[in-house]
Formats: sequence, C-alpha cells, structure tokens
Amino acid sequence: MHGEMNILVTLDANYVPPLRVMLYSLFLNNPGERFHIFLLHSSIPSPLLAQLEAEIAGQGHDISVIKAQEDWFAQAPVIKHYTKEMYYRLLAFRYLPEHLDKVLYLDPDILIINSIRPLYNTDINNYLYAACFHNNLPVRKINKLRLKAYEMEEYFNSGVLLMNLERQRKHINEEEIFSYVSKYRNRLILPDQDVLNALYSNQIKKVDEALYNYDTRQYSYYKLRSNGEVDMGFIIRNTSILHFCGKRKPWHKNYSSRFHSLYKHYELRAQDAFSAHHSQT
Amino acid sequence: MHGEMNILVTLDANYVPPLRVMLYSLFLNNPGERFHIFLLHSSIPSPLLAQLEAEIAGQGHDISVIKAQEDWFAQAPVIKHYTKEMYYRLLAFRYLPEHLDKVLYLDPDILIINSIRPLYNTDINNYLYAACFHNNLPVRKINKLRLKAYEMEEYFNSGVLLMNLERQRKHINEEEIFSYVSKYRNRLILPDQDVLNALYSNQIKKVDEALYNYDTRQYSYYKLRSNGEVDMGFIIRNTSILHFCGKRKPWHKNYSSRFHSLYKHYELRAQDAFSAHHSQT
Repeated sequence: MHGEMNILVTLDANYVPPLRVMLYSLFLNNPGERFHIFLLHSSIPSPLLAQLEAEIAGQGHDISVIKAQEDWFAQAPVIKHYTKEMYYRLLAFRYLPEHLDKVLYLDPDILIINSIRPLYNTDINNYLYAACFHNNLPVRKINKLRLKAYEMEEYFNSGVLLMNLERQRKHINEEEIFSYVSKYRNRLILPDQDVLNALYSNQIKKVDEALYNYDTRQYSYYKLRSNGEVDMGFIIRNTSILHFCGKRKPWHKNYSSRFHSLYKHYELRAQDAFSAHHSQT
Repeated sequence: MHGEMNILVTLDANYVPPLRVMLYSLFLNNPGERFHIFLLHSSIPSPLLAQLEAEIAGQGHDISVIKAQEDWFAQAPVIKHYTKEMYYRLLAFRYLPEHLDKVLYLDPDILIINSIRPLYNTDINNYLYAACFHNNLPVRKINKLRLKAYEMEEYFNSGVLLMNLERQRKHINEEEIFSYVSKYRNRLILPDQDVLNALYSNQIKKVDEALYNYDTRQYSYYKLRSNGEVDMGFIIRNTSILHFCGKRKPWHKNYSSRFHSLYKHYELRAQDAFSAHHSQT
C-alpha cells in the first residue's frame, strides 16, 4: 500500500487551463494513486477556483487551497517584472500544513505520462530537495547569467522539485534568500531557479532529467547523449514528466515540436474528462 | 442505431504491428460502434493470424480472414518489385462476401483519432469510391508520373477508400485493369493508386483530406491553405484519419514529425490493451 502523494502548484488564473491538463495527465497515468493537491495562489478568482476544486474532487482526489495574504513577504525585495509570487515555491514550507513532511512541486507546463511514484519515493532524508539538472542549458545563457555564488555546471531546473519540508523548515532562512535577491537583483534571469541554485545546489539530490524533467525542446540532445536509447519510444514508455520549457508553449498558436500532437491530445481529453464531470454535477 | 461498419485491410506479416495500432485507435475512438474487419492476405503465418483474430474478438469486434489463392490474378501482369498483392485493393470486391455492399479500406500506416462514422455514411450510391484528393503532391513527382490517361490535377490517395462494392461488381472490369498495367508498366510508380486515378477518377466522390486522410508530412500546407484553421488543436479535435504517408514511418528509428509522440503513445497503449487481452485468455 502506498500513501497519498502531496503535490504543490503555485499559479495565477492564466495558468489554470494548462494546470487542468497537467492534473488530468497525472491522474490518468497514475492509476490507483491518490493525490492531495496544494494550490498556493494570490489572485485566482473564486468561481474559477471553485470549479477547479470540484473537478479535482470529482476525479477522486483532495485539494487544499492556500491563499497568500497581503502581508506575506512584506520585507521581500521585488525585482524587474516579477511579483512576490516568485517566492511561493521557495518558501512554501512556511505555508503548507505543519504535519506535511514531503511535497512534490510541479510547474503547470508539464505532462505526466508515466508513474511518478519512483520520483516521489526518492530518499531525500539528507537533502532539502530532489531536482533535475538541465545539463543542456545553452552556453549563451550560462554566460549571461554569470552568477558568482555558484558553479554553473550545476544548474537545477526548478520546474519539478521534490521537497523535504521538515528539513526546509529547519534549514532555509528567508532572510538569506531576500538578501541574495537584493544583492544580485540585476543578474537574476529566472529568479527562483537562480536562488535555488545559488544557495542550495549542494543540498539538492540529483534525479534523472530524461525521466523526471524532460525538456521537450531538447529531443536531439537527449537522444545523442544516450547513444540513441532515449528516443520517442523510450520516452513514451519510461519518462514520467515532460516539461514544456521555454517561452513558446504547446497551448499557444504557432507552437511546434515533436510533442505538440501529444500535448493537444491530452488537452482535449482533459476538457472532455472535466466537462463530463460538470455535466454530472 | 448504427449498423456494423465493414473495414478492409490487406497486408503482409511486416505490417501486422502497425495494423494493431491502427485497429486499437479505431476501436478506442469510435466507442459504441461495432466493426467487422476483413483481412485479405496471402502470407501471414497462422500463429500470428490466430493471435490477431483473438485480439480483435477480445475487443468485441468481428474478423474474417480471406486468404488469397495461388490461382487468383493468374493472368495479371506483374511489374517491377510489386507482387500480385497490388491488385487486392482494386479487386477486393471479387473476394469479399456477396452480401456486403460497402466496405472502408484502410492502410495500416494510419491512426484513427476521431469518429469515422461520417465518412462511412457518405452517400456513394452513384460512385465506385469515396476518397481524398492529395492536392499537395510535389510537382516533381507529378512530372515524373506523366500518366497520359488522366488529368494530373485529380490525384486521389488510395490509402483510405470507401468502396461501393455493389457498383464495383457491375462496373469494374479486371481485364481493363490488367491491360492498363501492361501498357503503362514503365510509368507506374504507385501502381494501385495510379490505376485507381487513371481508370476511375471520375467515379470517385471526393471527401475532405484534412478530415479523412490527413497526410502527416504536410502540417504547414494544411494550415496555410486553411488560413490557420487546421492547426494541431483542430486536427486533434476534428480529424478522423491521420495517414503517415511516405517511406519514413513512425515505428521506424529516426522518424521525426509533429505526430511522432502521438503515434508512439497509441502504439504503447495498443500493446498494453492487447497484452491485457492475452493475459486474460
């Protein structure tokens, strides 16, 4: 018997449609598992939220909504066009229920196509996080970053983060995060991801990106790196998490990739599944 | 209430794996429909055939196997590297049960992603066939063909053919086909398709290729032609038949297209569905 898996998502209203697709794929491809979704947000309108809650409950899973308060992160520095929501992921441990010792954070621009149980069960007793290392970051981008605080060869993607909440409560200091952001505010490109890497990379357990955070832009890279093993057949059979990284998203017009058809397939199925639920209620 | 739909496939053992995927997608995406599969072949080994029959029956559908006899097409000319199997599609009406008045021929390099009922119900009382016209044949290829007997602007693809068997029995003359092949043997590239176009194009009802015979190599063409309407979302929602035309097939190594991930997804699901059946029997 397996226990319930805790999933954390943080988003605004614009990301509710892809969140639905992500959750649908999670539920569909993890049959027999029960999920508790923790949704941390500041601005999703109540009717949309109520609908989402009903949909998740209708699929047989639990959801807890945590609304950020005005005074959270009152002292936090804000940079560029980012809002204080950039801190939700890093400081979620403060706002999740105290009894929760583990949660899997997932970006909404993700498809789950196989079981995530092996990832969830990864032993992170001695780590703050488990995450995947995106090896294939373009050199151009690496050079642009030039963050002095950490070695660039370790660059973890923050889109899939298994969190050891118990340890985070003891070891993560929000003042340290805020002062880091203040100091490097002009150099940060993906602020939460940069902070994660700068401050905590040596406390992140590395898990296989081809299985748990597959960057859909990099098909040729993964295939080449694995001497051809990680081809489409392998991915469909083994990869748990496809991550649609980058600015162009599969729900946009004019998106293009090998994974476009699969995404749109899941998107339609998700709409059907959730609208079937609506018609029942 | 709808009647059973008759499906014709003709293939050798090499195409049994993609046939499984095609049939799985047909059954899955046409819930509530019952199919009768007519499989016309000359060389599929008995154990493989028995397995396929059990799988189709296990999914709740009917199958009739028709084994070609040695003396069929005894007088038929054979060209280049083609065997007499090139005639199966054109002359199937002779070997299908006499009571059958309609059948939908489908190539095995196809995925069915939406209902085929509207295609099947197309009125072809005054036609021999319904088929899709592949407008986008490269000019290079058209020039290579140069078949004098017909106007090249009408080029029907023979991978999806709705057949009016009753009319075919009266109006299709195998001697005419054989003499055409003999005469143009050096010009024929896709012999059965060329014969279909040369002899019968004015008796083929044209149906929409974007819905019923979508050439997966031509995404940009369909999108451009429709002023952007026929994009991936439209296809997933509306297209019934994706046809993986051309030499490179999605079950080959090093295949690449926007539809690759979707094909491999169905391929895996088909294996799971049919192996689940095996474990039950």
